[in-house]
Amino acid sequence: MTHRAGRHFLQIPGPTNVPDRVLRAIDRPTIDHRGPDFQKIGFAVLEGMKRVFQTKHPVIIYAGSGTGAWEAALVNTLNPGDKVLMSETGHFSTLWSKLAKKLGLEVEVLPGDWRRGADHDAIERRLNEDKNHAIKAVCIVHNETSTGVTTRIPLTRKAIDNARHPALLMVDTISSLASIDYKHDEWGVDVTVGGSQKGLMLPPGLGFNAISEKALAAHKQSKMPRSYWDWSEILASNATGYWPSTPATNLLYGLEVAIEMLEEEGYANVFSRHDRHAEATRRAVRAWGLEILCAVPEEYSSALTAVMMPPGHDADRFRALTLEHFDMSLGTGLSKLASKVFRIGHLGDFNDLTLAGTLAGVEMGLAVAGVPHKKGGVDAALENLVAEAGKRVGVKRAA
Amino acid sequence: MTHRAGRHFLQIPGPTNVPDRVLRAIDRPTIDHRGPDFQKIGFAVLEGMKRVFQTKHPVIIYAGSGTGAWEAALVNTLNPGDKVLMSETGHFSTLWSKLAKKLGLEVEVLPGDWRRGADHDAIERRLNEDKNHAIKAVCIVHNETSTGVTTRIPLTRKAIDNARHPALLMVDTISSLASIDYKHDEWGVDVTVGGSQKGLMLPPGLGFNAISEKALAAHKQSKMPRSYWDWSEILASNATGYWPSTPATNLLYGLEVAIEMLEEEGYANVFSRHDRHAEATRRAVRAWGLEILCAVPEEYSSALTAVMMPPGHDADRFRALTLEHFDMSLGTGLSKLASKVFRIGHLGDFNDLTLAGTLAGVEMGLAVAGVPHKKGGVDAALENLVAEAGKRVGVKRAA
Amino acid sequence: MTHRAGRHFLQIPGPTNVPDRVLRAIDRPTIDHRGPDFQKIGFAVLEGMKRVFQTKHPVIIYAGSGTGAWEAALVNTLNPGDKVLMSETGHFSTLWSKLAKKLGLEVEVLPGDWRRGADHDAIERRLNEDKNHAIKAVCIVHNETSTGVTTRIPLTRKAIDNARHPALLMVDTISSLASIDYKHDEWGVDVTVGGSQKGLMLPPGLGFNAISEKALAAHKQSKMPRSYWDWSEILASNATGYWPSTPATNLLYGLEVAIEMLEEEGYANVFSRHDRHAEATRRAVRAWGLEILCAVPEEYSSALTAVMMPPGHDADRFRALTLEHFDMSLGTGLSKLASKVFRIGHLGDFNDLTLAGTLAGVEMGLAVAGVPHKKGGVDAALENLVAEAGKRVGVKRAA
Amino acid sequence: MTHRAGRHFLQIPGPTNVPDRVLRAIDRPTIDHRGPDFQKIGFAVLEGMKRVFQTKHPVIIYAGSGTGAWEAALVNTLNPGDKVLMSETGHFSTLWSKLAKKLGLEVEVLPGDWRRGADHDAIERRLNEDKNHAIKAVCIVHNETSTGVTTRIPLTRKAIDNARHPALLMVDTISSLASIDYKHDEWGVDVTVGGSQKGLMLPPGLGFNAISEKALAAHKQSKMPRSYWDWSEILASNATGYWPSTPATNLLYGLEVAIEMLEEEGYANVFSRHDRHAEATRRAVRAWGLEILCAVPEEYSSALTAVMMPPGHDADRFRALTLEHFDMSLGTGLSKLASKVFRIGHLGDFNDLTLAGTLAGVEMGLAVAGVPHKKGGVDAALENLVAEAGKRVGVKRAA
Repeated sequence: MTHRAGRHFLQIPGPTNVPDRVLRAIDRPTIDHRGPDFQKIGFAVLEGMKRVFQTKHPVIIYAGSGTGAWEAALVNTLNPGDKVLMSETGHFSTLWSKLAKKLGLEVEVLPGDWRRGADHDAIERRLNEDKNHAIKAVCIVHNETSTGVTTRIPLTRKAIDNARHPALLMVDTISSLASIDYKHDEWGVDVTVGGSQKGLMLPPGLGFNAISEKALAAHKQSKMPRSYWDWSEILASNATGYWPSTPATNLLYGLEVAIEMLEEEGYANVFSRHDRHAEATRRAVRAWGLEILCAVPEEYSSALTAVMMPPGHDADRFRALTLEHFDMSLGTGLSKLASKVFRIGHLGDFNDLTLAGTLAGVEMGLAVAGVPHKKGGVDAALENLVAEAGKRVGVKRAA
Repeated sequence: MTHRAGRHFLQIPGPTNVPDRVLRAIDRPTIDHRGPDFQKIGFAVLEGMKRVFQTKHPVIIYAGSGTGAWEAALVNTLNPGDKVLMSETGHFSTLWSKLAKKLGLEVEVLPGDWRRGADHDAIERRLNEDKNHAIKAVCIVHNETSTGVTTRIPLTRKAIDNARHPALLMVDTISSLASIDYKHDEWGVDVTVGGSQKGLMLPPGLGFNAISEKALAAHKQSKMPRSYWDWSEILASNATGYWPSTPATNLLYGLEVAIEMLEEEGYANVFSRHDRHAEATRRAVRAWGLEILCAVPEEYSSALTAVMMPPGHDADRFRALTLEHFDMSLGTGLSKLASKVFRIGHLGDFNDLTLAGTLAGVEMGLAVAGVPHKKGGVDAALENLVAEAGKRVGVKRAA
Repeated sequence: MTHRAGRHFLQIPGPTNVPDRVLRAIDRPTIDHRGPDFQKIGFAVLEGMKRVFQTKHPVIIYAGSGTGAWEAALVNTLNPGDKVLMSETGHFSTLWSKLAKKLGLEVEVLPGDWRRGADHDAIERRLNEDKNHAIKAVCIVHNETSTGVTTRIPLTRKAIDNARHPALLMVDTISSLASIDYKHDEWGVDVTVGGSQKGLMLPPGLGFNAISEKALAAHKQSKMPRSYWDWSEILASNATGYWPSTPATNLLYGLEVAIEMLEEEGYANVFSRHDRHAEATRRAVRAWGLEILCAVPEEYSSALTAVMMPPGHDADRFRALTLEHFDMSLGTGLSKLASKVFRIGHLGDFNDLTLAGTLAGVEMGLAVAGVPHKKGGVDAALENLVAEAGKRVGVKRAA
Repeated sequence: MTHRAGRHFLQIPGPTNVPDRVLRAIDRPTIDHRGPDFQKIGFAVLEGMKRVFQTKHPVIIYAGSGTGAWEAALVNTLNPGDKVLMSETGHFSTLWSKLAKKLGLEVEVLPGDWRRGADHDAIERRLNEDKNHAIKAVCIVHNETSTGVTTRIPLTRKAIDNARHPALLMVDTISSLASIDYKHDEWGVDVTVGGSQKGLMLPPGLGFNAISEKALAAHKQSKMPRSYWDWSEILASNATGYWPSTPATNLLYGLEVAIEMLEEEGYANVFSRHDRHAEATRRAVRAWGLEILCAVPEEYSSALTAVMMPPGHDADRFRALTLEHFDMSLGTGLSKLASKVFRIGHLGDFNDLTLAGTLAGVEMGLAVAGVPHKKGGVDAALENLVAEAGKRVGVKRAA
């Protein structure tokens, strides 16, 4: 190992900086996953995740990545050959649609330009056309991690309702959960997909499905082959605080603590903190004279900001130099955005000064890489953070 | 939290006692899974796992449990409706066969009495009968965690070869890997399934598939729907040291260190240590006048010992009292063995004195629970451990 | 580093096995020792240590070892050339007397044979003779770590009272504090000296002085040169939750948690657990046919047991072989007991099964080293532990 | 506990931010401090500390704070009533002189204005006057933590040499060691005093004395009462890799790793990094229109910068608001500087982006507190950091 002085800035849009308290929890000795001590943890995280998803219905916790939880959402509710409607909002919506195809589903993708959220008029139109209700599910990415664009899920719900269409609504919140307000029950979502390594401040290794009653009813009719992801056995076992196969015990230790931390801060405070850091970041980007990828202000992501490079400049060269000189990891442009954008993650366990360091790293990286830009981005952000600080009562001291 | 003095004895046959060095590794900050530091770890664990499985071919590492790795072995190599032949050696072989059925495979199970390994004569007979080669795979559990019985995989290979049958050989080593000698290549296994939480001394959360060339060829013809478990994308990404979806970074930190620790001790020493502790345990069981579940000495497991309770005595009451009075978790009897056997795990990061404490806990638990037994079990074990100590050069001091 | 399988058995009579919960607490980031978060911890440990010493008066917490706390007790209360009376109970009482001489005090040592506690008749006689009250302090080691012998401090108090002598009573509880019942106030002790690395379950690095009002009055008259150890400045700073020089913050994190753990278990339970393990250990020693160094049953230590080697056998060779073969550290014989005794620590974070493993290690070590002994030591201990388990309600499960 | 989002900025001039790798090392189980594993660590840290102090002579490592190491330097080399000459450079030089008086030494303090280093002309003059060589030691603080001013020790050496005076030269490097270049042997220092919690990146709890041959000779003649701090016993024990009383084992684990980290980075790189961050900080201070306390550019500290508040503004109110709003701890003004200055620590495990966050926190704190200042401090610092980045080959990636 070679020591690099100081703490690495992990400012990709996930995995995020895992707080020490979570790491120390994960570091506890593994226990018997069939014993009474485990059961307490089991119930705590199962109940806690309901609060995180803002649902009264069950949440499934998988050992696996968010990709696994995408697969789980589909194989538990659909039937072979079913049609699903997706919106191309970026790299991750595209990956989800490819995954659905691999599982034998028929996928129809509404095109998009990767700079805005799902097109709700198009969704409503398409569902209106689907008189026979061949479409069994509408699948939307709440926060496109590749673009920094959110889709307003209540509008998706409204589009489906306007069309009086019975399709299930499935939403990916992998990079928004516990960072951006999300209401599984109130918004009428049937399956919400989540992961551990973003707003939940955990290492990767857990995936989630929040489930509506309608999704559960669909599950009972679903004939997709499945076993590991099958909700039924897990729900039966979860009712007693346990899991049918060995759960990722140490990550569950961390999850219990992460939920405690979120609730100590308060979800409303968590969300407004993310909003504040996103706004400050955008002010910096504009001050630099660079363009934000997201074209619709109402759809700005509070979890990350994707920034377009000036033509003729390679975003990945800039990222590599920033890593080399300032020990900060920024997100790369994915697939068709490769080398054209870089992404600043400002989610998870994060505060004003770390944001200031992050934006300083971007501003200095731009300078080192010779990317044309105006100075003053950090200043613009600081000005906004000071204004916001004036409004708050201040960071609460430990009680 | 309520403090219980001293360290808990986690003597279930997995998850096992995770050593501090592994826990501390897992406790390191999560990093960018697309960055250069990650890549080094990626290559290290991918190469290291080849040595663990004794193979020159690729090993797939999943974020998921061993159950997921079971599923992966099947969906990557077979086609819908394919027939697989399994041997009923206990609870876990039964679970695997149920999982195969859920995935749409036709499963034929050769019956067994849960006290011995797979019946190789029956396998050979059945394969000889299968003139059309309808059977596409033979699936065997190397070490039945529910019974403490191993199947000698070279004999399975021989049975298939004798029948000149092209079926794939798939083996579950979840509770034997890195505890009992296992040679993926030499024994001609096509897919070996493993998990992190036993001999590898890690928390649960990683599953493994070791793959032969023949398995890879079958994979290319396989049409089972799959995405998360799909080898192709993973192998392509692994070639560069990365994973297609976010890997369980912190568990990989632990895996890298666990492999280092196994190699510092030396695999031969690891295996003989497990043999020694198993032999000492069996001597204790016999001295107590209790019966070992495994009926065939050549098939004794070196990872765990399942012990039969005297008629009229409930193994789970004994286990509960042992936990209450002596803070030790023992394995329960599963499905048809429920309340009839208890299981002593003696695998993973373990030494003579912890074994002595474990056996003392069993002997005292039997006394507290009023289970008829003779004294002297611990003595018999110690006598054997002393004899073995005389043969060794002694525990090596840190170099 | 070279991996040795399993957990090391640290059965010297301190430092003791530090529980994970304390280690994880110590692993928290260091904070500003002048800030509000620190203050809460400061008050918590200062108040907590009063409960540990069973005193209503202040306790001083030093960054330093127990040796430093010995020095602190003397330099804070005495004057250059003062006479102190000590009892030779073993190696540590001797070290304390040497330390006193180096500090310029006149030391009178009442001789002892290292197999029993302080001679209270001799103390009373000597104080009666001291008509001019030249003796300013009587210094006693409560639990002689070198011999496994305790001195009954209430008898010391009585001896001083009988002689109507004004000398201060100073007691070293380094290896008994939080293991053996100790009542600073009730027993009329003036300065009690403690350390972190034994019953408090912490790493070494903190020393303690519990202080009576009389000691504080003496302090105000004391003219020994001192600065680091000076109570006055520390007491003044402690009144606000802080320290005058930088405290050992991370060890204080551990101390706060260690006190919590002791209080979760309950001090009465902690003490009876130590008594139980000591009794079981002595039964093992007797069954082996070996002799306990402590000659007076009322003075047996519940923290450790020193065992005499049969003539012609070297205790350190036995210890080295036990370490080599069974990865257990036992305490060596100190100064005149060198090679003649070994010491078994059974204090701190410890339970029945770890004791069983420890005694098994001794029994096997004796066999490997060819030390003549009878078998059955472990059996004798287990029998006693079973009997005691029957009396208890059982280890409480986490609430 | 109440969660505050993100990582606290601990920017007092020590204790500094302890890197995870050091914390994890400290978190290892405590071992037998008389056993062979300990010995390896003992030798490693004793040898390593020689490299840190740039000396070939022994370094003493104490369990204790830097204050203890101050005391040790004096009691090991002087005699009761000896005269020592000190320079008033700030709060800590004053504390050291008070400590010396408490120990019974005669202390002569050359006055200073707390804005510059020791007055070498005055020292030389005073030593020239001291014809009888009554002055036995000259004691200097290398880096005054209260003022951010360094004294150039080679000039101190020269002043003594010019006067041909035999006094010992003692230097406090508590807040400069391993941050600012320091050459114990080359500069002819007799006793150098250090602590663990600053440039060494450890929690507080260890103190150091580096010793010249002349100091060792003085030690042999010294009659100050001492025991805990006595070099002789420690040196004798250190020769075998051990300590006479129980060492602070877990902090030594951390020390071993901290030295490794310093040497991976390279001492020259460590020092130039501190220089760079100090220069950037001063540019920020000047841009804000605030005044640096240190009046002599050649004496600027690379470890911290003390900043003067505009008249009528309370530095502690500013610090409290900065803590409340931005979760950053800054150093307070000490004794006569109370409320007049604040101190920015930029030492230890630190990098450009954390410095940027730190300076952003100061700039925003000034705004929130309504302290008159110009904007652009952060900008000035970033500009300098970018220029420096251009000169370096870049942060080296892990090998």
